[in-house]
Amino acid sequence: MDTIYTHTSHPSMFLPNGYVKNGPTDPPAHGHISRPTVAVLGSGDFSKCLTIRLLRCGFHVVVGSRQPKRAAEFFPHVVDVTHHEDAVGKAAVVFLAIRREHYSVLWDLKHLLDGKILVDVSNNRRVNQYPESNAEYLASLLPDSTVVKGFNVISAWAMQSGPKDASRQPCWDSCYTYSKVYICSNSVEGRQQIMELTRQLNFIPVDMGALSSSREIENMPLRLFPDWKGPVLAAVALSIFFFVYSFIRDIIHPYVKSNQSDFYKIPIEMVNRTLPTVAITLLALVYLAGQLAAVHQLYYGTKYRRFPHWLEGWLQSRKQLGLLSFFLGCVHVLYSLCLPMRRSERYLLLNMAYQQFHANVENSWNEEEVWRVEMYVSFGIMSLGLLSLLAITSLPSVNSALNWREFSFIQSTLGYIALLIATFHALLFGWKKAFEEDAYRFYLPPNFVVALALPVCVILGKVFLLTPCVGRRLHRIKRGAESSQYQESVGAAAHVSPERVTVM
Amino acid sequence: MDTIYTHTSHPSMFLPNGYVKNGPTDPPAHGHISRPTVAVLGSGDFSKCLTIRLLRCGFHVVVGSRQPKRAAEFFPHVVDVTHHEDAVGKAAVVFLAIRREHYSVLWDLKHLLDGKILVDVSNNRRVNQYPESNAEYLASLLPDSTVVKGFNVISAWAMQSGPKDASRQPCWDSCYTYSKVYICSNSVEGRQQIMELTRQLNFIPVDMGALSSSREIENMPLRLFPDWKGPVLAAVALSIFFFVYSFIRDIIHPYVKSNQSDFYKIPIEMVNRTLPTVAITLLALVYLAGQLAAVHQLYYGTKYRRFPHWLEGWLQSRKQLGLLSFFLGCVHVLYSLCLPMRRSERYLLLNMAYQQFHANVENSWNEEEVWRVEMYVSFGIMSLGLLSLLAITSLPSVNSALNWREFSFIQSTLGYIALLIATFHALLFGWKKAFEEDAYRFYLPPNFVVALALPVCVILGKVFLLTPCVGRRLHRIKRGAESSQYQESVGAAAHVSPERVTVM
Amino acid sequence: MDTIYTHTSHPSMFLPNGYVKNGPTDPPAHGHISRPTVAVLGSGDFSKCLTIRLLRCGFHVVVGSRQPKRAAEFFPHVVDVTHHEDAVGKAAVVFLAIRREHYSVLWDLKHLLDGKILVDVSNNRRVNQYPESNAEYLASLLPDSTVVKGFNVISAWAMQSGPKDASRQPCWDSCYTYSKVYICSNSVEGRQQIMELTRQLNFIPVDMGALSSSREIENMPLRLFPDWKGPVLAAVALSIFFFVYSFIRDIIHPYVKSNQSDFYKIPIEMVNRTLPTVAITLLALVYLAGQLAAVHQLYYGTKYRRFPHWLEGWLQSRKQLGLLSFFLGCVHVLYSLCLPMRRSERYLLLNMAYQQFHANVENSWNEEEVWRVEMYVSFGIMSLGLLSLLAITSLPSVNSALNWREFSFIQSTLGYIALLIATFHALLFGWKKAFEEDAYRFYLPPNFVVALALPVCVILGKVFLLTPCVGRRLHRIKRGAESSQYQESVGAAAHVSPERVTVM
Repeated sequence: MDTIYTHTSHPSMFLPNGYVKNGPTDPPAHGHISRPTVAVLGSGDFSKCLTIRLLRCGFHVVVGSRQPKRAAEFFPHVVDVTHHEDAVGKAAVVFLAIRREHYSVLWDLKHLLDGKILVDVSNNRRVNQYPESNAEYLASLLPDSTVVKGFNVISAWAMQSGPKDASRQPCWDSCYTYSKVYICSNSVEGRQQIMELTRQLNFIPVDMGALSSSREIENMPLRLFPDWKGPVLAAVALSIFFFVYSFIRDIIHPYVKSNQSDFYKIPIEMVNRTLPTVAITLLALVYLAGQLAAVHQLYYGTKYRRFPHWLEGWLQSRKQLGLLSFFLGCVHVLYSLCLPMRRSERYLLLNMAYQQFHANVENSWNEEEVWRVEMYVSFGIMSLGLLSLLAITSLPSVNSALNWREFSFIQSTLGYIALLIATFHALLFGWKKAFEEDAYRFYLPPNFVVALALPVCVILGKVFLLTPCVGRRLHRIKRGAESSQYQESVGAAAHVSPERVTVM
Repeated sequence: MDTIYTHTSHPSMFLPNGYVKNGPTDPPAHGHISRPTVAVLGSGDFSKCLTIRLLRCGFHVVVGSRQPKRAAEFFPHVVDVTHHEDAVGKAAVVFLAIRREHYSVLWDLKHLLDGKILVDVSNNRRVNQYPESNAEYLASLLPDSTVVKGFNVISAWAMQSGPKDASRQPCWDSCYTYSKVYICSNSVEGRQQIMELTRQLNFIPVDMGALSSSREIENMPLRLFPDWKGPVLAAVALSIFFFVYSFIRDIIHPYVKSNQSDFYKIPIEMVNRTLPTVAITLLALVYLAGQLAAVHQLYYGTKYRRFPHWLEGWLQSRKQLGLLSFFLGCVHVLYSLCLPMRRSERYLLLNMAYQQFHANVENSWNEEEVWRVEMYVSFGIMSLGLLSLLAITSLPSVNSALNWREFSFIQSTLGYIALLIATFHALLFGWKKAFEEDAYRFYLPPNFVVALALPVCVILGKVFLLTPCVGRRLHRIKRGAESSQYQESVGAAAHVSPERVTVM
Repeated sequence: MDTIYTHTSHPSMFLPNGYVKNGPTDPPAHGHISRPTVAVLGSGDFSKCLTIRLLRCGFHVVVGSRQPKRAAEFFPHVVDVTHHEDAVGKAAVVFLAIRREHYSVLWDLKHLLDGKILVDVSNNRRVNQYPESNAEYLASLLPDSTVVKGFNVISAWAMQSGPKDASRQPCWDSCYTYSKVYICSNSVEGRQQIMELTRQLNFIPVDMGALSSSREIENMPLRLFPDWKGPVLAAVALSIFFFVYSFIRDIIHPYVKSNQSDFYKIPIEMVNRTLPTVAITLLALVYLAGQLAAVHQLYYGTKYRRFPHWLEGWLQSRKQLGLLSFFLGCVHVLYSLCLPMRRSERYLLLNMAYQQFHANVENSWNEEEVWRVEMYVSFGIMSLGLLSLLAITSLPSVNSALNWREFSFIQSTLGYIALLIATFHALLFGWKKAFEEDAYRFYLPPNFVVALALPVCVILGKVFLLTPCVGRRLHRIKRGAESSQYQESVGAAAHVSPERVTVM
């Protein structure tokens, strides 16, 4: 094992011992390299960038290639480019920067790789491309080596671009510095060693446990917003439903009944009727999940029983649902604000002026209408203002500066208030229309009545959960009622985990 | 001490030496666990989650419980759940996951705990619940143990949810990875050891010094936006004042004098008159604090004299004041943009059209009015645009990518320009009204005159501080004039700290 | 070297070995300080703050001053303030907190400094103030010492303000904890030691390589948004051009031809005509850069040939160009939404009502005009909505949570769609005007025709690059066609770096 310390150095007081090997019997040092030799097999882009990074951080690197002469031109001059066998022999840690299809070349090196740590950095082209992950396949090929999966989430670009570029690009910089490297292995020690090496390369290692996680790690760079799939689908489905509903009521009905062509309303008015209904429904869905979880806990009388699968998924996508709701709310505001800018608005106004003069009405003021509009506009703005606070605290960097109580205050208390105000906004918009007969075109209730169904249920549900008797029981369950017989168990709300699940 | 290394391993080159103990005389290793044994007393939620985290990161864990058999079902199978005495005997570091009320059980273990490191992770239910902090109380009970406070800010949820969940939730992920653990102890070494352990558990340790900080640490998870209290109270107080002021002038006065009912103006117009006045006053307060600090430095001729307590508090809440100002400014914009959408606006317009036709005025164009409105709208947008840059650079992640010069340019230079433009915006809005007699209803000057008092003072104050003689003197003070006799002292503006205080 | 361990301690299991020196022959420890002695030369602000930080983190500090007695009052009592010679003698690492002008005092200490690590923390007042950097100058003065540059980017304020303040200011806190320290040195070992020390002081070290980087490091705190210079200049130049163009066409022309005074249009309408044209042009420039890079790769048939200097700069400022485009787009929206609020709008409307009544036109509805406006407003909102997603994912903390595929989807796919929709928005705005003769005032085509030139080219360019034959060839090149003969080379799109350059 001593071979890996190709150069010894004089005592280093700040460095952990692993870097420098020196004892009272060591000869005086003259060199200064203090990190071990690492082998990199493969001579592609990634292998080159990894090599450069390793060199920069003080490692000695040996590159193994099938055509060392040719490959040597591609690498920095200080790197020792040699044959696979040679490279593997010089190092205890071997990075395998070769495609899965070429793992067969490792067969010949089997005896050389025994007992060494092999870091598999490979990626695939598609999610779940092969029946088992590359790393597990490798481990089955080379059972006597310690296979560690890692570094595949780092692009060659991020690997090579170091502090130099960083200084020029402040944002990428911070991104670069904190790049995470997910690592797994069946050998705890192998994992720890590669995690330490990861830190030395200025990445942040994340321990993913056993090699069975390698499939997940290999799929990571291929994912496209997996958390957003469900919420986006929900939003799209709701949008289509409400758009069609509104189209039938507001476009088809007047056309059929009175042959009135309102098709010009499609680009703005229809869209602007769909957006708020979807937004408020999504917001209600956020809080409905928490209420269902609370009901589950009340029913079983414990917080330790797992939620059904669909509810867990729903609970985990509340943040996405909330952000989508906010986004649609913002677009709704933009559309609404554009209403007076439209040419149609101008024509209607001019025609109204014409008619008012013809009818010789000096004052067309309608106090009730005035109050209705002033109120619902005001409520709408307030609701959006509160939702914007929720959105800001969802930003990772703001979020991580909040403690659990603050997070819960914003996301739960303010969120419910926003939902309540948004409901009032919609109620005031509708005013008395819900009770007028001719609002029920084709026997369909007005848009806003349909949109309000869920929010009103959720608000009533919250009121129910806040009633003293239910609330107290829920509180006891969340404090871990079941385990109350254990004298020990740390107090304090901040520790109790399932609350995070149900409060919101 | 050797007992803690229950398994030795083959030489680990990347691991700091603390993990692996091996020397030339060590027998060949076969095991692979390389981290010491840790005891956890208590069998509640937090203790369970802590245990899981410790296991994942390679530690050997012994859980001590009063009812080991019962508790064992609650823990993963690999964990050794035993009696308190047993557990304590096997480890040098003991986590106490028990409530303060049950500290008495530790009395029996006193002799076993001597010389060990006890990590107190407990929280309270209320801020300052007990006369002394839990950790200090513990230290007084067990004077021969090393008490370390820490991990209480981490929820059981964050503790358990590891990389696995992380991969599914990118945002929570980053939150998780960087979770901070505040640590304090009277023993420097105890602190260092637990900080290192914290790092190994993938948290970020923050050294809080002596155990006297434990009260602060215990209060942390119970806090609710302590930095925002003052600024929010200021904003609320100003809002009430300006709303009432405006209500008296614009609603009560016309009602009393001419029996004109303008109550419909309350939901939008009144609010929209209050918002901008509060916003510009808060913005002026941000810069007033810095000017008072500068005056303090000028008066005493040194930057080393502490500011009075109230001024320090004010200086520290400038960021919050500025963000509140921006938020209210944004809401003001929303309200203003909604003005033409209102029914009242439409009725007034229709009535005007009626009157114009009756009076047979072909062209009602008023060039002065046109210019006034075009100008103040334009200035308002510019001011908000600049303030939005200040708000964006207040986001933690953007902020940390700026150097001190850039931060000062945005927050001070652009901020003052935004204040100046906002002042012009208000002046143009008022135009000549301030000089008309009937604008002084009930002898009260118009809203905008009151709102402009502070901003104008602050702008004049800035002009005064920028005059050559004052500016030069201030510059000398900030460079550390007092200490100029010391030949040494690092140059460069970026280093001089009190500037950060006064520039803004 | 043993001298630096002034106190030994009992075995520390969690600490890396560097901290604690103990072996089987060590006597039982009673002290507890485990970190070495560090000397700080200089007694200014920065030196004081650095000393406090070092003390807090468990180091023993000796301060060297020319007037130790006087300086001692300025420092905490536990610090040993002594003469330069004394201080240097006691430590192996010496921080030089003195100005470049006083480096001469080091001459007398030359023999004492031999073999020690000197950390130069100095800054200058101006960018590139001296022909060579301070650190390189120092290295030439003291060739037998190991000169390390670092810590100059940290303000005295950030240095001193520790966790205590942090707890009060959550945002600054997170900023503080992750403060980066850029370090360079010609000695790899010196660099590693100071990087480790940096970590122990709770900063994040960034390795900048050899001492030749010290000029760059010294310039860092003096920079003012270097990445933004080019894009902001481009935006300003374009703004001036389009404003003047529009001024000539829309103000001068009617004044000259029909003596019509439209000067009131300057503050809002002119600005609002300039903003969108600049915004869409900047957005087109973002994607033009990537297309030119793709053409470069197609022409040379390889991705390994460097792009010309100007193209590299352009590629690197795409993020800034995109954000500026979004910012101007937002301001454009604000201006547009303010249009109906203006007095001029009201007067024009009233006059139109007057004329409509005079002409006795009952219905002034113009279906085509209505559709045109409804459509272009709707397209405009959609485009801004998409751009806002791009802007959000440009926030450092959001960005770092995305993998490369997600980033590319947002920035490239959604970005192109936003550009396409914005182009439709402008086309619909112009409608048939481009084909009307009197739109060509002074023979100048309408604004929007000029503004659309670049976006249309970029869209056509994209279509060309997506044609099967070109696309396939490009794909091959990006996969590293040249190196395809190498059997090894890690697969997967995520690794291939130049794609990041061209996709966007």
